[in-house]
Amino acid sequence: MLAIAMQSFDCHPLTIDYGQRHVTELHAAQRVCSQLGVRAPRQVKIDLRAIGGSALTADIDVPKSGPGAGIPVTYVPARNTLFLSYALALAETLGAEDMFIGVNAVDYSGYPDCRPEFIQAFESLANLATKLGVEGMRFRVHAPLLALTKADIIRRGIVLGVDYGLTHSCYDPVKERACGRCDSCVIRRRGFENAGIPDPTRYVQQA
Amino acid sequence: MLAIAMQSFDCHPLTIDYGQRHVTELHAAQRVCSQLGVRAPRQVKIDLRAIGGSALTADIDVPKSGPGAGIPVTYVPARNTLFLSYALALAETLGAEDMFIGVNAVDYSGYPDCRPEFIQAFESLANLATKLGVEGMRFRVHAPLLALTKADIIRRGIVLGVDYGLTHSCYDPVKERACGRCDSCVIRRRGFENAGIPDPTRYVQQA
Repeated sequence: MLAIAMQSFDCHPLTIDYGQRHVTELHAAQRVCSQLGVRAPRQVKIDLRAIGGSALTADIDVPKSGPGAGIPVTYVPARNTLFLSYALALAETLGAEDMFIGVNAVDYSGYPDCRPEFIQAFESLANLATKLGVEGMRFRVHAPLLALTKADIIRRGIVLGVDYGLTHSCYDPVKERACGRCDSCVIRRRGFENAGIPDPTRYVQQA
Repeated sequence: MLAIAMQSFDCHPLTIDYGQRHVTELHAAQRVCSQLGVRAPRQVKIDLRAIGGSALTADIDVPKSGPGAGIPVTYVPARNTLFLSYALALAETLGAEDMFIGVNAVDYSGYPDCRPEFIQAFESLANLATKLGVEGMRFRVHAPLLALTKADIIRRGIVLGVDYGLTHSCYDPVKERACGRCDSCVIRRRGFENAGIPDPTRYVQQA
């Protein structure tokens, strides 16, 4: 997503430490920003653990039996609403109209806050909620990965020079290595297979 | 607002430490919860100082020349959007449909995120953003003070047993005492005058 945004905008990356099990994704974001030659990400810490309610932040096991039907236990209550709220606060402070979020609805539609109608509702809210919105600025929330398959995303990233050996998707990593079995790993691996591109992900050694 | 909510709901108070100058309002919230006999507030800490952009959190002076036209420098970018996002995360985790926020649009309409259209937009977002919304629960955002004058709010609170000696409004307090000169103090003081109720606020000694 960052590589796409950088084609058209001067980017101010924002990463969010929300007590996620996979805090390694924050280190990966720093490496990716460095590789792509953009300024280092601002990191905001939010204490969702105080609120709980998700396998990504609370003491619930991350499932390893493959993607199922319905909304998964890895859903984090109001997570993307919170993320976009911080992005909006930063955008307004910087005087920036355009926000980007890397949500994806196609391969995995179980998360309500990854749907186009959610993105549109947040955009409407942003323009009502802010001083700049009242003054006539029009905030836009871009979700350029929203309608792409994982294979499309991977191909697009390769074209834009993304080193997927630096990126991280796993929900339950061990020492920065991907578990290979959580939903996120399974979907990512399939993406590389479908794209016909070798998977550079560092997985834990399987028994 | 809490006293009104307690008339109809079992309340789970949430306070937010956002690096505000007037952190004393968090202590006041604890005292008010204790006096009203509701559970102690959960406190979420958010680091808006990393984002900046407001006299309430950054190194900009709080104005003391009285309420003016336009949106004041004490506006905090996306603040109520962030507050409601945390409330939504907590509500969804608790399985609660009803959220309350104490915004008020009448006496002081300079803040875009204190308007009824903002509250309605957030309610729409909440129902799209969440697992419970998708599953058919209908989130409601109540803002019972929205259309009241400060005098009405004070009268209503007195009827409900609120001790205004425990509450705090000042943006720039000195040792937990109100400055008496910021917009918030000026508007609060006028509210007591208009309500014909003695003002129990503890002000700093004026020279």
